[in-house]
Amino acid sequence: MCRRFVLALGYLLLVHSSHADEGMWLINDPPRELLKKKYQFELTEDWLQRLQKASVRFNSGGSGSFVSPNGLILTNHHIGADCLQKLSDQNHDYLRDGFYAPTLEDEKRCPGTELNVLMSIEDVTDRIKSAVKPGMSPAEAFAARRAMMAEIENESLKKTGLRSDVVTLYQGGLYHLYRYKKYTDVRLVFAPEQGIAFFGGDTDNFEFPRYNLDICFFRAYENGKPARVKHYFKWSREGPKEGDLVFVSGHPGTTNRLETVPKLIHRRDHTFPFLLNLLRAREARLRQFSERGPNLARMARTDLHRTANARKAYTGMYHGLLDPATLKRKRVEEKALVSKLQAHSKSLKNFKNAYQRIAEAQKALATFENEYLLIERGYGFYSELFGIARHLVRMAEELEKPSANRLREYRDSNLESLKLRLFSPAPIPAELERAKLSLSLSFLAEIMGGGDDFVQKVYAGKSPSDRASELVNGSKLFDPAVRKKLADGGRNAISRSDDPMIVLARQVDPVARRLRSKFESEVDEVERQAFAQIAELRFEAMGKSVAPDATFTLRLAFGVVRGYEEEGKKIPFATTFAGLYEHAAAHGHREPFDLPSRWLKGKSRLDLSTPFNFVSTADTIGGNSGSPVLNRRGELVGVNFDRNRHGLVRNFVYTDYQARHISVHGLGILEALKKLYKTDRLVEELMGE
Amino acid sequence: MCRRFVLALGYLLLVHSSHADEGMWLINDPPRELLKKKYQFELTEDWLQRLQKASVRFNSGGSGSFVSPNGLILTNHHIGADCLQKLSDQNHDYLRDGFYAPTLEDEKRCPGTELNVLMSIEDVTDRIKSAVKPGMSPAEAFAARRAMMAEIENESLKKTGLRSDVVTLYQGGLYHLYRYKKYTDVRLVFAPEQGIAFFGGDTDNFEFPRYNLDICFFRAYENGKPARVKHYFKWSREGPKEGDLVFVSGHPGTTNRLETVPKLIHRRDHTFPFLLNLLRAREARLRQFSERGPNLARMARTDLHRTANARKAYTGMYHGLLDPATLKRKRVEEKALVSKLQAHSKSLKNFKNAYQRIAEAQKALATFENEYLLIERGYGFYSELFGIARHLVRMAEELEKPSANRLREYRDSNLESLKLRLFSPAPIPAELERAKLSLSLSFLAEIMGGGDDFVQKVYAGKSPSDRASELVNGSKLFDPAVRKKLADGGRNAISRSDDPMIVLARQVDPVARRLRSKFESEVDEVERQAFAQIAELRFEAMGKSVAPDATFTLRLAFGVVRGYEEEGKKIPFATTFAGLYEHAAAHGHREPFDLPSRWLKGKSRLDLSTPFNFVSTADTIGGNSGSPVLNRRGELVGVNFDRNRHGLVRNFVYTDYQARHISVHGLGILEALKKLYKTDRLVEELMGE
Repeated sequence: MCRRFVLALGYLLLVHSSHADEGMWLINDPPRELLKKKYQFELTEDWLQRLQKASVRFNSGGSGSFVSPNGLILTNHHIGADCLQKLSDQNHDYLRDGFYAPTLEDEKRCPGTELNVLMSIEDVTDRIKSAVKPGMSPAEAFAARRAMMAEIENESLKKTGLRSDVVTLYQGGLYHLYRYKKYTDVRLVFAPEQGIAFFGGDTDNFEFPRYNLDICFFRAYENGKPARVKHYFKWSREGPKEGDLVFVSGHPGTTNRLETVPKLIHRRDHTFPFLLNLLRAREARLRQFSERGPNLARMARTDLHRTANARKAYTGMYHGLLDPATLKRKRVEEKALVSKLQAHSKSLKNFKNAYQRIAEAQKALATFENEYLLIERGYGFYSELFGIARHLVRMAEELEKPSANRLREYRDSNLESLKLRLFSPAPIPAELERAKLSLSLSFLAEIMGGGDDFVQKVYAGKSPSDRASELVNGSKLFDPAVRKKLADGGRNAISRSDDPMIVLARQVDPVARRLRSKFESEVDEVERQAFAQIAELRFEAMGKSVAPDATFTLRLAFGVVRGYEEEGKKIPFATTFAGLYEHAAAHGHREPFDLPSRWLKGKSRLDLSTPFNFVSTADTIGGNSGSPVLNRRGELVGVNFDRNRHGLVRNFVYTDYQARHISVHGLGILEALKKLYKTDRLVEELMGE
Repeated sequence: MCRRFVLALGYLLLVHSSHADEGMWLINDPPRELLKKKYQFELTEDWLQRLQKASVRFNSGGSGSFVSPNGLILTNHHIGADCLQKLSDQNHDYLRDGFYAPTLEDEKRCPGTELNVLMSIEDVTDRIKSAVKPGMSPAEAFAARRAMMAEIENESLKKTGLRSDVVTLYQGGLYHLYRYKKYTDVRLVFAPEQGIAFFGGDTDNFEFPRYNLDICFFRAYENGKPARVKHYFKWSREGPKEGDLVFVSGHPGTTNRLETVPKLIHRRDHTFPFLLNLLRAREARLRQFSERGPNLARMARTDLHRTANARKAYTGMYHGLLDPATLKRKRVEEKALVSKLQAHSKSLKNFKNAYQRIAEAQKALATFENEYLLIERGYGFYSELFGIARHLVRMAEELEKPSANRLREYRDSNLESLKLRLFSPAPIPAELERAKLSLSLSFLAEIMGGGDDFVQKVYAGKSPSDRASELVNGSKLFDPAVRKKLADGGRNAISRSDDPMIVLARQVDPVARRLRSKFESEVDEVERQAFAQIAELRFEAMGKSVAPDATFTLRLAFGVVRGYEEEGKKIPFATTFAGLYEHAAAHGHREPFDLPSRWLKGKSRLDLSTPFNFVSTADTIGGNSGSPVLNRRGELVGVNFDRNRHGLVRNFVYTDYQARHISVHGLGILEALKKLYKTDRLVEELMGE
């Protein structure tokens, strides 16, 4: 047994020493020791404070940062795309053609955009855990915990006026309360053409070498004026060099590194095949829609890009799970933990028990996951109008309850953010709605069967496309005023409404709620308790040497700027403008390698040796898009926008063998802004001039 | 009961009178009465003889016709695409750029192409049916029938030297022996650019109005010289006009109109969702592959087009099945038959019994259909090399048995055709093979689970992409001489081979064979017997007033050249060259609406009022591509190439409400050949000058 222990420990060290740049670390529990030891870097409180308060979360799913004291924000073009699309119309295609506000007055407000800046973190683990009493059924435990979370959030909101979210860390091992300052008046300052922001399109997505000016500038406003912010990142006048230590601050969305093997196997054999099928169905439909003409293509562009991007990402993640090396490594890690626990037979027993409960939850989930995803999570109703209708229907019912007893998204502390989106004046194109809804109604039948009672009820005796047309053409929910009136009218207004989308949402809701309860009690709660137990056992055995999985909350990652080898070829750490023009020429300048005319005409004005994109080993994931990349001094040296395909497996295991995240180089951004876009006002503000 | 009978009969008449142009009729049982009554058209023996012997089948899945006494053949560009792609290399892209042989010597031989011309039909129903004795198990019955079919085919081959196929009609109600003259020396004469042949690409596919020069000319050779043929179609010097009766002769692939409702529901709820998932997965992968560069795009073009085309077709068919009107109509038809049978209680009982057996076969099929399609039908191994390897492995085993006992595709009478494909010198691009195989290995796991024993065995401890590379890079089967040597070496050579693709095919074969036997005995045989019974009952009750489902054998369809209405807009029956140029301009001449330069430069030479494409109500389906469209005199007035999307439901029900097949107009072809392509030799031959 002693030998086995040593062997397992050996594995563990091996696993850990070889992934030393792993980790999306909590801001309130940063890897001070590690940074000091490996990189002789001293993390100061000031440095951390700035990192925290100059980092910005795009509530729609991305990261960004303040880059001037006047609320100027840098993020990715693909994070700004949602706003660019909403501001566009038949005469202005800002998403395709870009935008620049030469004066403050020209900055354009984005409908429905919310930004969050993290102000403080508080550990509320004990309070949350105390809510669940021994002997409670899973459903009771779930409700009790949810109520406690809502109570804590509400208290905090009342006390501080700040957006307050309880965040579940280590799958239930810790609970932290995050308080955010919110900005809801966000205006567009600058965006380049999509042709350079997304040069190479879906073809080059998740590849490196890359040549993308994937940037977008916004400005946060307060009381109609540019927000004054104390913390922001200064723009570095030098770029990162090979071998430099860099930091990435941002909001990684989801990782699954602490999940057990049976849960990963469930993802491999159930969730991923379902999602891949769904995404490919959407992509085929959106592509067909877009091909019918440039106006339709404009409408569908954001949806299509998101879908193609997700399809490529999920395919890479799925292949990661199919690679025998991945699960082998997870098994080694699990064995290492088991070995550590073997000294305490009670701990070992608890671990095995928790492990088994998680495995059983997967079996339960497999029996209803498709329906849960389609009906409750809404994947079977790919329609903005339906999403709005469902919120209206649910709000009417939920708001009659005390905040603590509501479905979590309707708790008091979340209502303002929810309503911002719900009453957003952004236009919803009816043609696209019809296509998306018709596709998803048809997909509903693909998965559940055309004769299924629920499907038949949704179809109401019509074909999917006729039904989608009837629902979309008959709905008045395009108008935010109508939505607001329905929301204000409460349960009465909703139950009297004959808007076909509201009627459908009313019909669907009982089924959806049943599936949600089932998921909560048979899967979510079981997993949460079991994972919490495993987390505690891991803390006991190994401390917090492993960062929690990503939760779309602020994290700090670090790594080294470094190229890699691929098929015997050296890939340098950075590309240049010269490489951009060569790459375009190699593809005959054909879409998606057709450079905007500004770039073709302006070539001679550029210093072609300027670095354009670069890679580092830091640990990022989707959600980190728009993250600032910082040097030791905390200056901005780039903005992260992608991973290469080798990095797609990082949802499950960190590796720096070939895997890299990709950033736009700070000097490349400056060169383009100065020489091609001539955005003097913007450059002066960035340079603090 | 009497009232119900009358009512049902009313339905039946209604159903029939409203679909009077329905039917893909047997050449030896043509709708003489119907044509006489409805169109005052007298079908003469001469007319039928010419139709039969001037019609050509492309064994790879299409139709065509002789259009000169010297073996000149007209078909579609997309039917010729396979040959165009195989003849292309890095320096010549005939698929994209077109081809013209100014002299006979320039005509280029297509590797692996086989054409069939139907010489005679013989009814062998009694012999086939007599092979199955009462009391035989399904497996015995299947084997006995298969043996009898092989025996009849072999006898015929020996006696006549002609390719001899027993064809199953009415799902087992009739068996006819078809004898074909074969042409295996087929040479390319002319093809236009893909940009005009497939103008509008996947966007306009299955749409009308259309503007496609989807034509390709080949020539059949015998003994190294142009084949002299007695029967061919003369080119009409006038085009079809609105309201004209036209005929379509060709080889419709598959319809499902005589299937029972439970079988259609099985297709709706199992087969279609599986196939749509598969096709979308292939399409996404092939598109990603093609985007990486023009050379890769060339390699994948045919696969991508076929896949996108199939995805669009299957989606339309699936939507047809989801439309409640479709199954309602099938139920009405079934009720009508039941009513007719009610006079004879034994007949009714037999019908209900057969109907029930078909329903039960669907239940059985649902439990293993995915595996059957993936493993035995090869959808899980999307690779030409694997297809070749499997044939080699199976041939080695099967050829040791008497012909009558072999798997049907290895019967003596089929061997020559099979070997023509198997030893074809057409190049197989390794990059494309790797991408396709890697995709399909991954898809195998999506459907069967990553941990499935079979999947694990196929993966051999590697990731799907590593495994695909290993298999493709290590295989010598790219070389036709290697294949031939392995085939000649028989069982010994195969069992000793360490070619990784042969090794894989050997491993997969036992599983595949088990699935095939299971399918044959639990589904195919049960259905065949039951459908045969239903067919006989239908013959008794209604005669042969309904044509058999399509079987990729020669059929005659007829209809009227007629436009239709769509969303309140009149769609005229034909388009013109003027419309082509307008359509290109409306799409900004962007791909796939970018006309070849010949068409841009040559516009002024064309008479823009010349009709280009036209539609008729005749009953066609996939496989009819390249079918000649004929006038009352039997002259060629066009070549069919597509259906509009309203016609996609025709797999299950015929309708002429908006549903149309689409043809290139004979006068449009002539105008383009004369004025733009200047193919004098070809035009003179067509005009008999």
